[in-house]
Amino acid sequence: MFDNSQESKTNLSELGEFGLIEHLTKHFSPKLDSTIKAIGDDAAVLKFNDEETVISTDLLIEGVHFDLAYMPLKHLGYKALMVNLSDIYAMNATASQVTVSIAVSNRFPVEALEEFYAGVQLASKVYNVDVIGGDTTSSTSGFMISVTAIGHAKKENIAYRDGAKPNDLLVVTGDLGAAYMGLQVLEREKEVFKANPNSQPDLEQYTYLIERQLKPEARKDIAKLLSDLGVKPSSMIDISDGLSSEIIHICKNSKVGANLYEEKIPLDPAVISVCEEFNIDSTTIALSGGEDYELLFTIAQQDYDKIKGNPHLTVIGHMTEENEGMHLVTRANQKLPLIARGWNSMDKEEG
Amino acid sequence: MFDNSQESKTNLSELGEFGLIEHLTKHFSPKLDSTIKAIGDDAAVLKFNDEETVISTDLLIEGVHFDLAYMPLKHLGYKALMVNLSDIYAMNATASQVTVSIAVSNRFPVEALEEFYAGVQLASKVYNVDVIGGDTTSSTSGFMISVTAIGHAKKENIAYRDGAKPNDLLVVTGDLGAAYMGLQVLEREKEVFKANPNSQPDLEQYTYLIERQLKPEARKDIAKLLSDLGVKPSSMIDISDGLSSEIIHICKNSKVGANLYEEKIPLDPAVISVCEEFNIDSTTIALSGGEDYELLFTIAQQDYDKIKGNPHLTVIGHMTEENEGMHLVTRANQKLPLIARGWNSMDKEEG
Repeated sequence: MFDNSQESKTNLSELGEFGLIEHLTKHFSPKLDSTIKAIGDDAAVLKFNDEETVISTDLLIEGVHFDLAYMPLKHLGYKALMVNLSDIYAMNATASQVTVSIAVSNRFPVEALEEFYAGVQLASKVYNVDVIGGDTTSSTSGFMISVTAIGHAKKENIAYRDGAKPNDLLVVTGDLGAAYMGLQVLEREKEVFKANPNSQPDLEQYTYLIERQLKPEARKDIAKLLSDLGVKPSSMIDISDGLSSEIIHICKNSKVGANLYEEKIPLDPAVISVCEEFNIDSTTIALSGGEDYELLFTIAQQDYDKIKGNPHLTVIGHMTEENEGMHLVTRANQKLPLIARGWNSMDKEEG
Repeated sequence: MFDNSQESKTNLSELGEFGLIEHLTKHFSPKLDSTIKAIGDDAAVLKFNDEETVISTDLLIEGVHFDLAYMPLKHLGYKALMVNLSDIYAMNATASQVTVSIAVSNRFPVEALEEFYAGVQLASKVYNVDVIGGDTTSSTSGFMISVTAIGHAKKENIAYRDGAKPNDLLVVTGDLGAAYMGLQVLEREKEVFKANPNSQPDLEQYTYLIERQLKPEARKDIAKLLSDLGVKPSSMIDISDGLSSEIIHICKNSKVGANLYEEKIPLDPAVISVCEEFNIDSTTIALSGGEDYELLFTIAQQDYDKIKGNPHLTVIGHMTEENEGMHLVTRANQKLPLIARGWNSMDKEEG
């Protein structure tokens, strides 16, 4: 179904002890003025003038965060960067460098790692970041990825999680739930494929959902968009675990409450129709699905006119006093408490 | 033998999805002026005025880099930081922040992770670095650690691998080979313990070796020492894979050759005696043993008087023209080509 076969296979040990990372990273040449020294020394060296430096790191583990049965390695390399760059953008900052470390078992030939690094390279080109280092080691089983992203921003532009005020508007970029439903489609197809390897799946109607799962894009554009609109977000977070838990993060950090309006949650038509097909409530998916890598932020009410009608931005609620609590206001005008229920039962990242 | 038993055991899932990292990192409060925001947002925020930023990252994998049969988790947390801080010091820079990510299977109770983080906390205190973030996730098997260290230095002080010149002196800190021989002792005791769990090992004569393996210290002191002595190293690298491969790294990056004098290699008496006991050549261990986390650097000949007699520093050779090659000059005055033979067959880190 998803062809991962490799024409040529080079055993990892053939490259020798010091050859592997040199081989995999030889096409990574630094492009940014802020990258003084990239791969090839004990540490990389960066220079950011008088801006503040922003750092984020994530681990991705085979069997926990991805399944190579349907995740092509090139897409995995691309997505590994997106997961981290999204955290930098969620600070309203510009991403500039990444380190990429992998641990792999000997079952992966060099060509498989090349595919992975081709995805890393594509992402670094599209998002204009330099790959400045990493570590390549063997694992006893499976494939593990650790990415650290570095960015920068002027002090006054950085958006933390703790700046939301009562009456601020709650705004989300893009649409929600598609990546999670893409995963459901892929897992269903994997089961079909296991039962009948000759089946020819027709996944065309799910293209958007599958792309959102396999090739997510981080919202590099939002910092500039908000700057152009003259809007400074009072708080900001990326949506990796689901809308619900991200709202709760902002509320707890900012010591405010929130009302989220179900009817305002932006959903792609493909999400609505696949939720009907799977008989799942689309609001639940948006609240708890995760992996959307959209941004959630708050703005002062008086900035509403500046963002009104922008196709990238949707106002989905507003902040309240802390003692009013955190609620979902349903289409039937019921007020339900918001509950954090990330899709992944033990995966939490900070800083 | 090495007691890892835990009195109380809390299952990881009891802390809930978002409780774990909060629980493990609640005692990490930032202390440095350069740490603007640490754990608790999408990314950490740093500020270094006009110095250059130095970044290094490493992965440590259970079964590849450490064996929990003899590595207490607190020591593992300490060592995980040392491995990375050593890379920062090898740039002649000051380490200031680290991110620490772990992936663990459910076989580890919360108390085990607390032990690990106690070691991280101790190291961060001793070395005056802030823990500013990380990621905590589940693994399908085993324990994996990813550390990224951030440091800073004035541009003119940073020592790269490519600055060595012919006739520069080759200098090493501390002594070599002890960590590797500590590992040999521990592995032997593990076999003895397997055969007879009631055996009472007497490891007192191996204390130094075992400490060098289980609780290595990175050379935080050297940048200041060299600055006080008025010496600017022309190149520098840390000794993680063995003296031999590190000399080769400097030579290749600097396009020079080197003569290393066997009789000058600093060895602790405990290394010499345990090498006799194990019937291993101590020079081979110093050249290829690894995990010493000492620093190797080059200085101009005219700086010799400044470092002469310093108990932390040993001149072990000098650089030559590139076409003269890289050699070990033995005690018998034979010239043997230097060969890179790191102790770990597939583990290479850069940047």
